[in-house]
Amino acid sequence: MSDARAPRRPDTIFWVDPGAVQGDRLSLDADESHHLLRVHRAGIGAPFVAVDGAGVAYECEVHSAERGIAVGRIGRRTMEMGEPPVPITLLVGLPDAGPTEVIVEHGVALGATAFDFFAAGRSGRPALAAARLNRLGRVARSALKQSLRSRMPELRSSPDVETALRRLHGGLRYLADPAGSRLTPPPPGQPQGSVTLAVGPPGGLEDREVDRFVAAGFSRISLVSNRLATETAAIALLSMARNVLF
Amino acid sequence: MSDARAPRRPDTIFWVDPGAVQGDRLSLDADESHHLLRVHRAGIGAPFVAVDGAGVAYECEVHSAERGIAVGRIGRRTMEMGEPPVPITLLVGLPDAGPTEVIVEHGVALGATAFDFFAAGRSGRPALAAARLNRLGRVARSALKQSLRSRMPELRSSPDVETALRRLHGGLRYLADPAGSRLTPPPPGQPQGSVTLAVGPPGGLEDREVDRFVAAGFSRISLVSNRLATETAAIALLSMARNVLF
Repeated sequence: MSDARAPRRPDTIFWVDPGAVQGDRLSLDADESHHLLRVHRAGIGAPFVAVDGAGVAYECEVHSAERGIAVGRIGRRTMEMGEPPVPITLLVGLPDAGPTEVIVEHGVALGATAFDFFAAGRSGRPALAAARLNRLGRVARSALKQSLRSRMPELRSSPDVETALRRLHGGLRYLADPAGSRLTPPPPGQPQGSVTLAVGPPGGLEDREVDRFVAAGFSRISLVSNRLATETAAIALLSMARNVLF
Repeated sequence: MSDARAPRRPDTIFWVDPGAVQGDRLSLDADESHHLLRVHRAGIGAPFVAVDGAGVAYECEVHSAERGIAVGRIGRRTMEMGEPPVPITLLVGLPDAGPTEVIVEHGVALGATAFDFFAAGRSGRPALAAARLNRLGRVARSALKQSLRSRMPELRSSPDVETALRRLHGGLRYLADPAGSRLTPPPPGQPQGSVTLAVGPPGGLEDREVDRFVAAGFSRISLVSNRLATETAAIALLSMARNVLF
């Protein structure tokens, strides 16, 4: 499902640190330069696109390629390239390491702008440490480039449901729950400034945790009749929300 | 997201070959017996559930456990346990081996009843051989048990779009296409006996292939604005369909 808008450019986009943009020039780091210059064999004048993870996409041409570092001359800048119309936060009861990476990979592609892997009662483990969040950040960055987005999602891990809920802003709120109903468009006039989607950990949320979500204004949404793994549920709920809400 | 209906039973279900069911007794094979008797430490009289992949779920008690083979006494039989209300076929332009397994794993959990990994023009490879389909069958069987379903999906791989389309029955038809619109409920009175969902291969469908789908009655559905990997697109379209159609 690639688009065919830019036949001459590499089919991937590149990462640039915001600090490496100066005036109408930007410098890729050694890894990204290698990818552009060696893997894609881009020469002087070749077009490419770089994103800075802060919402800016730069259309560039290779200006120089000395000592393995690609410097681009910036043409057009696009703000919020590939970003969804409203922020989408995904709250997920912390599962194993593998599923968290699956959720970030597909969740970024489907437009999530923040992830909170909260330690639920049945997660059986504490919130993620900084090293694990850093690793998830690398997964997110790769998915961001793959899906032609420009703003890095926020990645966090709350120690419990209460903390996760305190960190939220307003907007629509939905909780995956077998006892719920179908996800339908909200009544007109309801605030739609942001959306939060929540999914329990493997083993499910405890009753008191469900009560906290409901008290915080979450509507219960039934996904399908079967038992779903946490990562399948998270991807499914996000897909449904993208189709129905915006 | 497990359910809490059966606290005494193992949280998994077991596989039984239809030929191993005789009257009110069934025999698990050596692997499944080991799992029930050793991993779950089920003794004589312990309850368990087995599915035969042909739509029947058997509620059993362990009747005997000799020479490592668990024999169950069958209580209640449930037909079509965990199956969706209508057949759901997923047509996917053949990607690499990894994504095909991801699609089967999550697709089975979300209720797909048939998969056709067709060799599209941009797949760059021929249809899957029997050995690969067998391997996907093992992935499907594991996902079936995990998601508490009872009927094995059909797995096939057509050599081209035309063959894939010829193998379809009637019903609603949707194609993932960036030029499409939102997936909405069909007008009342339209036949809903089955649903077919189609997604292109990595690199997308060729124009002539899209034309074939449209000529065969597929409506184009836009997933999200970004570029999606084939496996993300397949899971997303299936999730949207489950929410909107049934």
